[in-house]
Formats: sequence, structure tokens, C-alpha cells
Amino acid sequence: MFDKFNEECALVGVWNHLEAANIAYLGLHAQQHRGQAGAGVVSLENGERARFYAHRGQGLVADVFNDFDFSRLPGRAAIGHVRYTTAETASLANVQPLQAEISMGCVAIAHNGNLINAAELREKLIGDGAIFGATTDTEIFLHLLARSPKNVPKVETIITALEQVHGAYSLLVMYGDRLFALRDAYGIRPLCLGKLDGGWIVASETCAFDLIGADYVREIEAGEVLELSMDGKVKSYFPFGMAKERPCVFEYVYFARPDSLVFGRNVYAVRKRMGRELAKELPVEADYVIPVPDSGVPAALGYSQESGIPFEFGLIRNHYVGRTFIEPKQAIRDFGVKIKLNPNSDLLDGKSIVVVDDSIVRGTTCRKLVKMLRQAGARQIHLRVSAPPTIDPCFYGIDTPQKSDLIAANKSVEEIKEYLGADSLVYLSMEGLYRAINSDKTSFCDACFSGKYPISVGKPRSHKQQELFNV
Amino acid sequence: MFDKFNEECALVGVWNHLEAANIAYLGLHAQQHRGQAGAGVVSLENGERARFYAHRGQGLVADVFNDFDFSRLPGRAAIGHVRYTTAETASLANVQPLQAEISMGCVAIAHNGNLINAAELREKLIGDGAIFGATTDTEIFLHLLARSPKNVPKVETIITALEQVHGAYSLLVMYGDRLFALRDAYGIRPLCLGKLDGGWIVASETCAFDLIGADYVREIEAGEVLELSMDGKVKSYFPFGMAKERPCVFEYVYFARPDSLVFGRNVYAVRKRMGRELAKELPVEADYVIPVPDSGVPAALGYSQESGIPFEFGLIRNHYVGRTFIEPKQAIRDFGVKIKLNPNSDLLDGKSIVVVDDSIVRGTTCRKLVKMLRQAGARQIHLRVSAPPTIDPCFYGIDTPQKSDLIAANKSVEEIKEYLGADSLVYLSMEGLYRAINSDKTSFCDACFSGKYPISVGKPRSHKQQELFNV
Amino acid sequence: MFDKFNEECALVGVWNHLEAANIAYLGLHAQQHRGQAGAGVVSLENGERARFYAHRGQGLVADVFNDFDFSRLPGRAAIGHVRYTTAETASLANVQPLQAEISMGCVAIAHNGNLINAAELREKLIGDGAIFGATTDTEIFLHLLARSPKNVPKVETIITALEQVHGAYSLLVMYGDRLFALRDAYGIRPLCLGKLDGGWIVASETCAFDLIGADYVREIEAGEVLELSMDGKVKSYFPFGMAKERPCVFEYVYFARPDSLVFGRNVYAVRKRMGRELAKELPVEADYVIPVPDSGVPAALGYSQESGIPFEFGLIRNHYVGRTFIEPKQAIRDFGVKIKLNPNSDLLDGKSIVVVDDSIVRGTTCRKLVKMLRQAGARQIHLRVSAPPTIDPCFYGIDTPQKSDLIAANKSVEEIKEYLGADSLVYLSMEGLYRAINSDKTSFCDACFSGKYPISVGKPRSHKQQELFNV
Amino acid sequence: MFDKFNEECALVGVWNHLEAANIAYLGLHAQQHRGQAGAGVVSLENGERARFYAHRGQGLVADVFNDFDFSRLPGRAAIGHVRYTTAETASLANVQPLQAEISMGCVAIAHNGNLINAAELREKLIGDGAIFGATTDTEIFLHLLARSPKNVPKVETIITALEQVHGAYSLLVMYGDRLFALRDAYGIRPLCLGKLDGGWIVASETCAFDLIGADYVREIEAGEVLELSMDGKVKSYFPFGMAKERPCVFEYVYFARPDSLVFGRNVYAVRKRMGRELAKELPVEADYVIPVPDSGVPAALGYSQESGIPFEFGLIRNHYVGRTFIEPKQAIRDFGVKIKLNPNSDLLDGKSIVVVDDSIVRGTTCRKLVKMLRQAGARQIHLRVSAPPTIDPCFYGIDTPQKSDLIAANKSVEEIKEYLGADSLVYLSMEGLYRAINSDKTSFCDACFSGKYPISVGKPRSHKQQELFNV
Repeated sequence: MFDKFNEECALVGVWNHLEAANIAYLGLHAQQHRGQAGAGVVSLENGERARFYAHRGQGLVADVFNDFDFSRLPGRAAIGHVRYTTAETASLANVQPLQAEISMGCVAIAHNGNLINAAELREKLIGDGAIFGATTDTEIFLHLLARSPKNVPKVETIITALEQVHGAYSLLVMYGDRLFALRDAYGIRPLCLGKLDGGWIVASETCAFDLIGADYVREIEAGEVLELSMDGKVKSYFPFGMAKERPCVFEYVYFARPDSLVFGRNVYAVRKRMGRELAKELPVEADYVIPVPDSGVPAALGYSQESGIPFEFGLIRNHYVGRTFIEPKQAIRDFGVKIKLNPNSDLLDGKSIVVVDDSIVRGTTCRKLVKMLRQAGARQIHLRVSAPPTIDPCFYGIDTPQKSDLIAANKSVEEIKEYLGADSLVYLSMEGLYRAINSDKTSFCDACFSGKYPISVGKPRSHKQQELFNV
Repeated sequence: MFDKFNEECALVGVWNHLEAANIAYLGLHAQQHRGQAGAGVVSLENGERARFYAHRGQGLVADVFNDFDFSRLPGRAAIGHVRYTTAETASLANVQPLQAEISMGCVAIAHNGNLINAAELREKLIGDGAIFGATTDTEIFLHLLARSPKNVPKVETIITALEQVHGAYSLLVMYGDRLFALRDAYGIRPLCLGKLDGGWIVASETCAFDLIGADYVREIEAGEVLELSMDGKVKSYFPFGMAKERPCVFEYVYFARPDSLVFGRNVYAVRKRMGRELAKELPVEADYVIPVPDSGVPAALGYSQESGIPFEFGLIRNHYVGRTFIEPKQAIRDFGVKIKLNPNSDLLDGKSIVVVDDSIVRGTTCRKLVKMLRQAGARQIHLRVSAPPTIDPCFYGIDTPQKSDLIAANKSVEEIKEYLGADSLVYLSMEGLYRAINSDKTSFCDACFSGKYPISVGKPRSHKQQELFNV
Repeated sequence: MFDKFNEECALVGVWNHLEAANIAYLGLHAQQHRGQAGAGVVSLENGERARFYAHRGQGLVADVFNDFDFSRLPGRAAIGHVRYTTAETASLANVQPLQAEISMGCVAIAHNGNLINAAELREKLIGDGAIFGATTDTEIFLHLLARSPKNVPKVETIITALEQVHGAYSLLVMYGDRLFALRDAYGIRPLCLGKLDGGWIVASETCAFDLIGADYVREIEAGEVLELSMDGKVKSYFPFGMAKERPCVFEYVYFARPDSLVFGRNVYAVRKRMGRELAKELPVEADYVIPVPDSGVPAALGYSQESGIPFEFGLIRNHYVGRTFIEPKQAIRDFGVKIKLNPNSDLLDGKSIVVVDDSIVRGTTCRKLVKMLRQAGARQIHLRVSAPPTIDPCFYGIDTPQKSDLIAANKSVEEIKEYLGADSLVYLSMEGLYRAINSDKTSFCDACFSGKYPISVGKPRSHKQQELFNV
Repeated sequence: MFDKFNEECALVGVWNHLEAANIAYLGLHAQQHRGQAGAGVVSLENGERARFYAHRGQGLVADVFNDFDFSRLPGRAAIGHVRYTTAETASLANVQPLQAEISMGCVAIAHNGNLINAAELREKLIGDGAIFGATTDTEIFLHLLARSPKNVPKVETIITALEQVHGAYSLLVMYGDRLFALRDAYGIRPLCLGKLDGGWIVASETCAFDLIGADYVREIEAGEVLELSMDGKVKSYFPFGMAKERPCVFEYVYFARPDSLVFGRNVYAVRKRMGRELAKELPVEADYVIPVPDSGVPAALGYSQESGIPFEFGLIRNHYVGRTFIEPKQAIRDFGVKIKLNPNSDLLDGKSIVVVDDSIVRGTTCRKLVKMLRQAGARQIHLRVSAPPTIDPCFYGIDTPQKSDLIAANKSVEEIKEYLGADSLVYLSMEGLYRAINSDKTSFCDACFSGKYPISVGKPRSHKQQELFNV
């Protein structure tokens, strides 16, 4: 609905807990902001022989598990996944965790990220006789595991699979007797480890730990393969050595929840500092600093604190948003924006305002917002974006438009300002961004701002499917 | 879920608009915060003979009208209603608007408020041969209208009915050829008039006008009966003279959306001034001012601006809340609060904070909140409530606990502080409240703070039903 | 879907049984053939004060009560209802039992029949200040009960109400302390009494007794008001004397289940005798006697036994019929018939057949059937109808087309034969009908065959509603 | 619900028809009796590149496709499937048609039958790196096709797959440019070919052709692989030579619809002849012949015609059966039978009856039936079964209990009679069965009666899964 990049997933894993599936479900709920299109939990019951149980569905966690009886997901281990979807991938078959019976036994897998060489791998595997029932690249992992050498320790099946994939991924792989949690060598997507009642929890963001009362232990490191066994042993492998970490800087800009610790930093604090840096870079006089709720709030607060311009809520969010709304044929002006945000005219009338948002992707929503604020009486509108211009698409697991649709890739800041109808427009500089993070430039993946891709993307191409399933 | 007073309804009326029902539905959506248990729209098609069409259901507006085909609600007029419910009244039969065929033709009615003499009226009507199919007091209006004198102008049926009821109400009555919008003589509950594309809109709050693009005209006045006819005529009656208005002050404290104009004042501005007054009354030193989201935000902002203590978000709200969540048997500490709010420990650790909330009813949630904030590391917690202590129940259409359950009716402020575990606790004074509203005390109903009921409540009693329907 | 008269309701009452609501639900299921549009059960819990509990919904009993938890309908008494509906009355508000709080306490009512003077009564009641929330004439009974004299035995409220209504009805009225079961003076619609585990059961047809294991006791007599009290007393009243019974002969022709005892006769046996009489009246030579399933089966069997022509299934029914089916745009020939019945070509090819159906209303379906049988190879088709021509509508609770749509009211038998495309067509004579029933003509209502209405219908008119609710 | 063998599937294929998916859906509806647990249709749109579209769900065809918009299944070709399920296989993942992207492009597959060597094949394939996402043996076909030699005509992929499987199957395989319809070498399960509007239809039973108005062409022959191409070419292959056909005799006994042509014979006629043979074998004197509806009806009719004993309906079926029904705790006697069948006591009282059923599997239902008939007054009950005793399980796609649960495998006819409480019991002899079919013994698979399995079943075993998915 909004003009944002879209995070594509969250993961949760629970190992050795009496109510593993229930905990996994709550961990997904806490991470719902990372994907609203589908949710699933696979639990594992250890006994004489391992049994996997699954529940998956399309929509929000609360809907998929509405009135759910968790005794249908027994066992002391579980993994869960929430996902975002695009039109092409909107199918129940793509809802994770995926599962299969393979040579090592049964396996379930949950994946956050994107494989650069997915098309090549899929073609190669299909050429070798594999069958693909879904379109998500996660299915590739299943096939690679299934074709690993036989009679080796299970960690070897993981390492063999990883040797073949090229891309960004945080991954949970649950076998009948152990759970693997791992991140690619650059650690692009987040994943962290916690402890609860003597068992282990793995989650994309620490806000999941907070809800279930787990203690944060540490991040799964870039390039690390962590192995949790039923006997309580924890082993850590770095099969490809210690790579230079390059986590996704956009987690700080927009994706993560502000109360999460991501890559070792509190997101709220980083966002506030982005706002502070933004305020320093090109000061402006105004009556109020107004956030675009909710993602723009911390940066706007930082901006206000740095600039001394009062922070005010000039846009009020309707919290009862969800499904699509039926608009009259005699269309309502800017309906799409208004159904979520209403300008507080009484406050805005005749005022000069600084409006802080975290990013502008296509510019379509922002343009409506500016118009709506003007109609509400705002005299001057100074747009401030708490991140640099987004000029390049992401190939590492984020849904971004193609370059030709990114307004900042095609227009100058001055042109964008004109298009949006703002009185001024300032983006945070790259330098300001890294000052806010308190890091140097080379420590993060900032390809969407810089076009510098830490993992080569080659000529990104899609699988040349001669024939397609629309499921 | 939270320890708040509960607004019981919102109204919307549309008169002379091509897409009346669709507009009504959107007006309800904008006012969803006033009632989440049921929603309905009745439309009126004028032709040779009037036809009414209805759709009602339990739950949120978006669910009741999910995929709804508005051609099933034709006509140029419509009224709508959202409601809150308690266990006793949770029945589809109570979902409004109610409708019936009576001597004047068909009629539909939507009501926000409460009749003090509902039990007496119901008994009397039943004694006179009336049948009651629901338990809501709105049905009483239907019977009173049905028993009005015959062959009089329709406005007389309204006036005759109003002569018999005693209580607080804003009301929409739609006949086959006209719509009445009215408020009781004290104007306890809000109702305002707007204009859209040459037609009329009536709504409880102006945020409904904002979404559909209607222009605010004025409030329906206390004691006014406004009559809208198909021929475009608008007539205003004051059948009981001009009473002293005493609107509900709690609309400013908690119920209304901050972007609404209620009783002529912008709610956000009033709430901020409440925070400012609170800051003046008993200053404290602290690192941050923290709102309890979302209702405490404007007052916290005002508090921060007045005190100079920085405003920060120390409690992060999960926006994906709705249905009930399934908690593990091995209960999670303070689950009920945590599912909605997560403390931002990184910010709070070792800090002294002022926590601003709008009201404390039973104190149960607040106590958990204080505990949770301490566990998150807060060193000192200074609770500030942006309204006076709530010491008496409301009988005018708000769901409040009985007096014995109101913590402030049974404990001193010092005792409450102890119970909640806060380091200090300050409520806004009555004087501060009215300074914030910029009004004198006698202009509002503040019975929940003062026990002074503008409309006598006698010995409030419930209908002595010997037999009950649980429907 | 088929060209038949439609029975409009079944009733069930349970008095003094531990699992009253559950029993009522099963009694409705057994009588599902009498109404598929809506179902409801109201239970009564006796204690210090009576409590009524209700569950109602649209559709089949199995759907309305799918996964239903019968602890939500506690108590030792219950009444239930299934209904048929026409487009005008398709509303949840019309689903029975209806219930209300009235001067005598709470009351629930279930009705099978039709009031001739419903329009007058409704107008009069509305003129007297009554409100009507539904369109079913059952609501009239509620109002009449509510306006009965005060402080009289409850049976008096019933009798007072009955004095005012004019029509055909079987009725269950449940007060907080007693259940009334009654039939109009002519006993048009069926109702019988049974016993189960020391409690009482009332049902429209005895097949309900069979399923729940109740013993048949007797019919509620024409004009009888039976009163069942909590103290176990059973009283019988004949407030209007002993009328000449005139039960509906069409129950034998089509409505009742063949395994039911209706008006003291086994339906299956009567239908077979109708077939026998039919065979005697105008013999024909043929290879097979073919029933139109399922209602034509017993008569066809009787016809075969009398004539000596072998009985065969030439039309096979698909049992998985229910909802509407989506037909291709490139329409399938006679789809509407074929989705339910398929001719058994192998059997029919080149054969001369007698096709036995129970009635022909408009003739549309029958015409398609004849065409379909010819295409399946039937050489000669001799249509036989096991009842006289239906020439007049019913005003006593059956949904029939208006006279102008009844083929037999507008065409001679010869013309009908031509229209249907049959080689011959014979209807059972009135004499034959009564021989089959083993009764004389004056003992039944046969208005649909004779136009002789035992209860005067005057100029049947509908309520002159100037305004309408489509709910 | 009833004590019967359960057919496990029906297939339908549509090739070159404007509304292929809609036709397929109706073809499934007509064959609903062959499987009520799940239904699916995959359509194929040919264009520059082939696109497959799928819709699948659990439950009846009418439910899975309730309000379905067939424009979501575009294309001129489609295959469909309905299935029966057991507890172990009740998963959406097992609902057919299955589909995958494999080396030859996309493929969809629908299967009726059972692979004897499924466990071995699955183990072998998994050992070779295959992933299995479902538990149905149909997935094995997908893998075998995927691993076929490359760059060969598509028919070769089919033949290569068939070379490896051992069992009974009728199969539809839809590639992007052709549809294969085939039967195993013994032709155990049925499959026939029809024509509609210039396109081809394939279905398990001809009743599907009747509903959609297709013309029957012929059976797909045992061992035949029929290839339909987009260019209109039809090719027939017999890759394994001409085998001796051994179709399933039980299709005549119970599975097929009576109006279908199966293996070249009209089912109704065969069943009637079974009844005639039964009457000849051991005559008895009785008042009536009573069928157990519906499957016993044709045989009972044949019995009656042969014996001269009148055919009557002594058991009336309730047609509104579907979901489970909620029984009172105070259990109703023989509830499970009564909810479907009610004895017509009026007819049965004091009578001696011949009761004809098609088979007795465990005997549990039959025993209740006998008891129920006695309670209804039947004086003598002579049970007649229109097939030989079922003494061995089926391994060719029918759900049968294990041998130890088959009453006739463990008791003599005399003992069974005693157990059931009948006055006499006669099964049709094998000779009588084949006289009724008008065939010699060696032409059919009658393993369930004889233990003689045309396809060796070895030691039938299940896949030794160390780990299991319950999905």
C-alpha cells in the first residue's frame, strides 16, 4: 500500500522447549512487520523416530493460527517463517517452512534472503532430474541437501549445499535430530541467538526474544553455521573462513522494528541519530517537525532534538487498516493515503513544516502526502529523508522496484522536489548515514544507495522457464 | 485488552449522495476506534415507495464489509453504526442500526449514548404489549416512535419520544423520506454536520469527514433536532428550549481521535495542553518523557515541551494486534501487555523516566507496565496521568467498571503509587484539566472525575427481567 | 431447482429432556426435507429465573450447527424450526424460532402455516404502535401474545391470540415454564406428539421420532392446544370446539417423507396405492415403469405392481447435489435437470416407458425430462401423475406459483401432453386419490386440486407496505 | 460412514475445448461418488509458452469450487481428480492433480490406482537425491518422468516411467503440448474416451460424459498409452504389447454409478443380473425384497423380478447427509445407521423380508441394520449379498481393511449369519457373479473374492520411513 521497499521474511527457531510451536508462533507474531503474506510453523517430535508436523497459511500470523490448537504441532523443536509476497509468488506452495523427505530423513527449511544464481541452479537441478513444485528459491536448498554426499555428518550436507549457492541468506534447516542456523558469508540478512528456559531460540530480530521472554545471547555470525543437537551440544562452523561482514544497512533505515537490536545496535537509537545528522546537514527554519508515521517517527524525533524545532504529530494514523477498502466510484481524493493517514489540519494550518520520512521509492505516495498536507493548510513543506537516495534495486532478499521505477535513479534531487511539490527536499548523505550508525562505509551493504554490490550479481536474470505454473 | 474506559459507539449519516452506503461505510471505518464489536449500514432508496436495505455483522468494519458489494445497499441515503460490546450484549440482534416497520412506515435508528430510565421504559412498554427482541436500549426508541400520535409531522414522533426518555444520546433516525440527527439537551455525546457533493454528512467525529472529503459545517447543537428532507430542506428544532450544554470531557481525555474536532476543539491540541498543565503542576527531574502509546502520546509531547525533558518512545507498539493470541501454558511474564507493547531497553536502561498515560482505571495494566519498564532497566519511574482520578462510573453511554473496581475511588494517590510500584504518581488537577480545555468547569460533564452528574441518575438500576434471552 | 410445490417448514419441540437442544437439532435434521433455507433452536433453562438460549442460521441444519457446541444451548426444553424461503423472505431476521421479551416473560415461537389475515393483522398492530422487525407472519403471533390480557393463565394468552388469527398453522409456543403445541381448527398442517426418556417430543413428522428413538403417542388434534408444564402436567384444550378436520392432502402426494406417519397413515403405503389407482384408471402397454426420483418412486412401484409392467430405474439421481453449479458459457443441453438426474440409456433404448411423477406444477422441468428421455432412446413415453392436476395455489403455508403459472390451470390435459412432448398423459382422478387414502373427499383440504378452500381466503392480498425492508 | 470398500479416485481430462476447466469440474462432479475428500483441476493455456493454472482443495467438488471463477483456470486443456482419503493421507499436499516443473517443462498428473512397488521406488529415488513433499505414490510418477532420458519424444518419458512401476493405474499426464491417457497392462482401473465439440474427453466413468453431453467413443485399452496433441493428432501406443485384460470386478459390484458404462457393460444391468442369479441360487419364501439403499437397489430389483417376491422400500434414506452429526451424550441406539437410513415400520411389521446388499465388509453396519429391522417389526430377515464373500484386501487402489478385519475371511457363512442376527444369509457364488457379467472367470480381477492377484503383490510393505511428515 505504501511506497516502500519490502522486507521479505522473518525466521524463528525453537530448540528444546516444551512448547516449541507455540513459542515459534509468538516469535513470528513479534516479527509480523517483516512479512504479512504467509506464515508457517513446522514442529519436530523426537521419539523412536522423528515426526514433523506442519501448519501453514496465507495472511497474517493471527489469521493463519486463529483458534489454532497447538497440540497439533507437538514436539520440543520448531521453526517458523513469515513472508512477504509479490503477485508472481502468491501461492500456498511457496509459504515456508518448506519440508520434504530426502535421503537424510525428513527436513524442514526456512529462508530469508535471495540466491543470485537461483535460475542457474534451478535449471541445472531440473536438468539432473529434479522436480520443482514451487517457485521460491528456497526449494533449491531442499534439492541441494537431497543430493549431498551420503553417509556424512549432516553438517556436511549443509556445507555442500552452501558451496553451490551464491547470494544472501539467513537460513534455518531442521533435521530429525538437529537444527542448523546459518548466515551467508557477508551476513547480509540478520539472525540472532537467544536462550529460553534452557532451550535455544533463533530469530531475525530480538523483538521476538522480548515477547517470549528469551535472553539475547549473540548474533549468528556472518558465515557461521550453528548446529544445535538434541543432546544439548552446540557447535559452530565457519566452513568458508571469516568473511568481511557486510550486513544490510536498510534494516536500520526501515525494515527492523525500532525496539530490536540488529547487528549489535539498537534500531531506535540509530534512526534517531539519522534524524540528527539530517538536521545538521542542511538546516531549515520551520514551525514543526512532522514524522510520516510510523517509520519516520524516530528520525523526526532526532531531527527535532538536533534542530530545536518542535516535534509534532501532523499526520494521524488509522490503526484499523488491513484488507483492501471499497472506495466509492466517485473517487475520493488521495484515498489510498487517507485510509491510513489523516493530516491534523488544526495543527498544520498556516505552518511551515519539516516532514521526515525514511525513504522515497517511486515518489507516488509522497507526492499525494505533500498535496494532502498543503490542502490541510501547511504553508511550507520541507521534505527530509533520513537516508540517501535509493538508486539501485536490491538482489539480496528485498522486494524493490526495478531501477527505472526508482525516482532517485532517474531524477535529480531538484527534479524530485519539483515532482513531489515540496518547498525543499534533502536526503541524508552517505557520510551522515555512517556517522549515525557509528561505522565506516565498508562495513555494510548499501548497494541500494551506492550500486556497490558486495556479492556480485552478474547479469541478474530470471529462470528461462518455457512453461510456467500459476498456482 | 487494556485498562481503559470504552467508548460505546460512533454514528454516521449520509443524506442525498449517489453512493450513500459506501460513504457511510468509510465514515464508520474512520471512526472504528469508537467501537470494534459490530458494524452496520442501512440504506434508503427513494422511489415510488421507500425501500430500506441493511447489512450488519459482528466485528470490525473491514471484516463485516469484506468484499461487500455496495450495490446491495442502493439509494441516496444511509446511516451507519459501530459498537463496542460487553459480554451481556454480545449479540447480532443488538448490532445497529436497528430497523422496523411502524405506523409511520419503515424506520432505521442508530444511537450513541445511554438512557437512564431504560429499565422503567422497557417495563412500561412491555406492560403495554410491546415485544423486545434485543437487549440494547435503542430498541426503546423504536417503540416510542411507533407509539407516537398518528397523522402528525414526523418530527412530532421524534419529539414525543424524546419527551419520555431521560439520558444521554446522540441519535440518527431515518424515515422513508427524511433523516433526523439529534443530541440530548446536554449534548453529552458528540455529533457534527458536514457537507459532501451537495449532500449532507453527519458523524460523531470529524475524522470521518476528513476521510471522505466532506467539509465540516458545525456541530449538531445540544438539544437540537435537525431534519433533512429529500427536497433539500433543512430544518432545526429545539423542542426543549436551549439547555446548558454539558458535553463529555472524557472525549478529550481518551475517546476521540486526536485529529478530530470535538465540541469545537482540536483533540490533539487539547491533549497536548493537558500534558503541559500536568508538567506545571508538580515538576520532576528525569531523563525522558515516555508516552504509553497511543493515547498517551499527545499529552506526553505537551509534557515534554513544557518541562524541557526530552520526549522519547520507550514503549514500542506492535501494530498487528487484533484477535486473541494463544499463550503457552508455561505462561509468559506480563503476556497481556507485551503482546501490544515492548519496552525499548536500550533506551531505558539506567534512566529516570516520566511515563505519561491518559487514565488509570483499575490499575492492573499499569502495574504490569511499571514492572516491565523496571525489568527493562528504568531507574526511576514517575507516572503522570493527563486527567484527574476516575472515581465514578459513567451512565451516559460509556462502559466503565463499577465504582468498587475504580482504583482511584478506593485508594489515595499515595496508595495507588505504591500499588503500581511507581516512584511517584501525579494526576492532572480539575483546574489543570479545564485550563487545558480553556473552559470553565460547569461547561462539561466530568462526572467520572467529580461524581457530579448533570442528568440525574437516581438509583441506577437494571431491568428486573425475571426471564432472560441470551442470544 | 425442481418444479414442485415447496413445503415451508418443520417444527420440533422437546420438553423435559436432559439434552433437549441436541435432540431438537436431530429432529430438525430428520425433517430437513421440509425446509432447507434456515434452521434454529431455542433452548430454555429453568432455574430461579428462566433463561432462553438461541442459535439460528441460514442454510441446512448440518451447516448451521456445524461443529456446534450444544453446551451453548443448555436446559431441559427446546424448540426448533427449519424453513424454506422465497426471495422476498430470505433474511436472517425471518429464521425461526422467533423470540421476544413480552409481558408474560420471555417467549419463543415456531410456526408452520400461513395466516390468511396476516396483512390486516399487521396493519392493525402497526396502527396500534407495534414494531415489526421481520416480514414473516410468525411475528404477528408474538405481538398478539404480547397484547393478551394481563394476569391470566398463559393458556389464555394463546387462546386470545388464536381468536384473532385466521389461517392454517401448527405452532409451538415456549414460555419460561411451559410449552404449548397446537394446530388450527382444521388441522391443515401436521403435528404429532411423542415420548422420549420420560419427556415429550413434538414434531411435524414421525420420522423425527424414529431418528431420536422416541415413541409415537398420537397427533396433536385439529383445534387442540396442548400445554406441557414443568411439573409434568399435560393439559389439552379445545378452545374453539371440535372442528371438522381438513388436513392437507398434498402431504401424502409430495411433502412428507415416505417413512413418516402423517394424519394417521403411512405415507409410503398411501403413495403406493396412488400408483395402483393410477394404473387402474387408464391402462397402457409399456416395457417399463420408470419413477422420477425420489418422490415418484412409491407411486411408480404401486403402478408397476398393479399393472404388472416391470419397475425399473431409468433415471439415476446424483446424490451430491446442493449448491449451484457453474455451467460453461457454451451451455450444456438441459443442464438444470442433468445435474440431478441422468437417464440410463442402456436400459431405455428403444423401449416404451411409463414415467411416474407425483405432480406437474409449471411443466418446465417435466418437458426437459421428456426430451432427455427421448434423446436417451425411449420410444414411447407415457406420463402418469399420481395426483390430480394442480389448478389452484395454496394459501395455507405452501409456496406455490400463482394460478397463471400452473400449467393445469391454463391448459387441458391434451394440451399439456403436447407441451410436454409425451405420447400420453394421465393424472390420477380425485376419486382415485381418495380411494388411495381410503377416505372420503370432505375429510381433507384439496384446494390445490379443487379450488375448494376450507378456510375462506377472501381476496388474498399482501400487506400494502408503502415502505419495505430488504434485510 | 458405511461398511464398504472405498473407491479411491476418479479422473477427468479435457483436450481442446474452449471451456476445458469448467468441463473438467463438471466431469468431476458427475464422478463425485468415487472420492469425496479432495478435488482439483489443472488447466493448460497454450501460447508462446505453456502456462499451467491450478485449483485444489479438500472436500466435495461443489465446496472446493464454490463460487469459483473459471477464468482463473484458462486454456483449452485441463485434467481433474477427486480422491478418497484415509487418516494417514489427509493432507492438501496429497490432493491431485500434482504438478511440477521438470526437465521436459511443466507437467501435471492425475492418478487412479496403486503402485505395488511404491515403497521401493520411493526409497530408491530418495537415495538418488529426490525430494518428496507428499505421501501419495503419484509423486513417484513425477520423479520418474523427471528422470527420463533427455531429448526424446515425450511419450518416451512416459514409457520409461511405466517400465519401472509395478501396479494398477489409470493415469493422465498433461505436458505443455500434449495429454497422455493410459491404463496399466491389466486395465485394472477404468478409463474411457469421449468426444465433445471437436475436442476429447477422458473420464473414469461414462456418467461424466452424460452430464457434459460428450459422446462415448471407447475405453482406453488395457496397456494403451494414448497421446493427444495440440495439432489434433491422436496416437496410440502399446509399449508392453497386448496384455490379458483383468479389470476390477468390484466396479460392477459397488463402485461405479449404475448409469455408467464400465468395461463395456451397463452397470445397472449387470447389478440387476447379479440379483437375478442370487435369487436362483438359493430361493427363499418371503413377503418382500428390500434393498439396502442405494447400492443394493438394482440387485434387489433383479432379485424381485426373478423370484416374484415384491420389491419394496423398507429402508428410507435421508438425503441430507454429509458432515458429521452431533449425537447426544445419552446415546441414541444405532445412531450411525439411523442418521442415514430409517426403517419403514408400517411396511415391515410382521413381515418376512429378503434384504439385498452388495457387500459385507466388517459386518458392523449390517449387524445394526438387522437389529434395526427387527425392532421395526420384521419377522424374518433373509440377508442376500449380490457378490461373493470379500475375503482378501485390494492392493490396486481401493481402500479395504486388512484381512483380519474382513468378516468373511475369518468366519464361515453360518457364523456370519449368527453374528449379524439374520435368519438366513446367502452370498452370490463366483459362478453366479460371472454369469451375471456374462463373462468367464479369467477375464477380471476378483482378488478380493478369490485371493488371486493378477499383478503379484509380493510381501506388500510400506515405506520404512524412519521419519515422517504429518502435514
